[in-house]
Amino acid sequence: MSALALHPAAQDLLFREARTANAFTTEPVTEAQVRAIYDLVKYAPTAYNQAPLRVVLIRSDEARGRLVGLMDEGNRRKTAAAPLIALLAADNEFHEELPALLPHFPQAKDALFADRPVREESALLNATLQAAYFIVGVRAAGLAAGPMTGFDVEGVRKEFLDDDHTPLMVVNIGRPGADAWYPRAPRLAYHEVVTTV
Amino acid sequence: MSALALHPAAQDLLFREARTANAFTTEPVTEAQVRAIYDLVKYAPTAYNQAPLRVVLIRSDEARGRLVGLMDEGNRRKTAAAPLIALLAADNEFHEELPALLPHFPQAKDALFADRPVREESALLNATLQAAYFIVGVRAAGLAAGPMTGFDVEGVRKEFLDDDHTPLMVVNIGRPGADAWYPRAPRLAYHEVVTTV
Repeated sequence: MSALALHPAAQDLLFREARTANAFTTEPVTEAQVRAIYDLVKYAPTAYNQAPLRVVLIRSDEARGRLVGLMDEGNRRKTAAAPLIALLAADNEFHEELPALLPHFPQAKDALFADRPVREESALLNATLQAAYFIVGVRAAGLAAGPMTGFDVEGVRKEFLDDDHTPLMVVNIGRPGADAWYPRAPRLAYHEVVTTV
Repeated sequence: MSALALHPAAQDLLFREARTANAFTTEPVTEAQVRAIYDLVKYAPTAYNQAPLRVVLIRSDEARGRLVGLMDEGNRRKTAAAPLIALLAADNEFHEELPALLPHFPQAKDALFADRPVREESALLNATLQAAYFIVGVRAAGLAAGPMTGFDVEGVRKEFLDDDHTPLMVVNIGRPGADAWYPRAPRLAYHEVVTTV
């Protein structure tokens, strides 16, 4: 694939052979792996360098039990069995950190994000971009990610977050186990997605 | 960085050395490059394998002029000079393709996405994930991306899309030119983003 600068093995690792896993081995996902993932993907771009993504790692049996009970039926068994579960959320008060994150435009906090609805829209967009970077980062660690949006959003907010945070998705993380995935489903063709004017 | 499986050169290409470019060389971005980017990132995960992202490549001078006039003042000069401009949008009627994209659950189209507000929320989330994958793909092609959300959203919808599509961002693409970026801004520390329960 000479049109890409990325090494073919890296293309495979991140996109072509990486799959959404529905089953995992019991091998733990370490704190060092999660730190390495974060320290890689933190550099990916957002608007005004905002950083609304928050990650809650579910490690205790007690917390896992509470979360599994809030997942949709079809997501419960795999979430109960995943080596690590990450709850990804958007912090709607991200503007408090903006003066530190955007030193060349310290006025952004008050000039652009004084209104909560504006912040919520921006937090949703940019934390979702960061969630995608996080999924790519999980794959960069040689792990499989199983992102899910099928859960009781208000219940998860109440159990694990607060009114300033919006749950985005739950991601099961680990090494893929036996029968970890369905056959690869089709994708849209280039001409169905890309047009030129 | 032994906690990651991705080769350090690929880490640099995609995250550590990649930057949001504000200036570009005049080297064109070819159709073959955009196809290679799409053919790589199309495999990244979305909910129910939906594919709401749409990409409008702005190649004619006439289209570029219309778009530049709808960008915020501070984004005009770089958008006028970028070798390629990609308008990324969400298709709120993505459910029409679901039976083809999700052959093991063909009922999803009607069972889950019969209501337009539900579709709009899902299209926004998943097309934004796909936009992040696209940005990573631009970097995988050895190119710099300059994503921007500062434009007249309704104007862009009217000029380049229709009522079924929501503009997400405009991405300038090319090889970085002279003084392409500001100094790297700070990022949040791990403990500010990740908590464990």
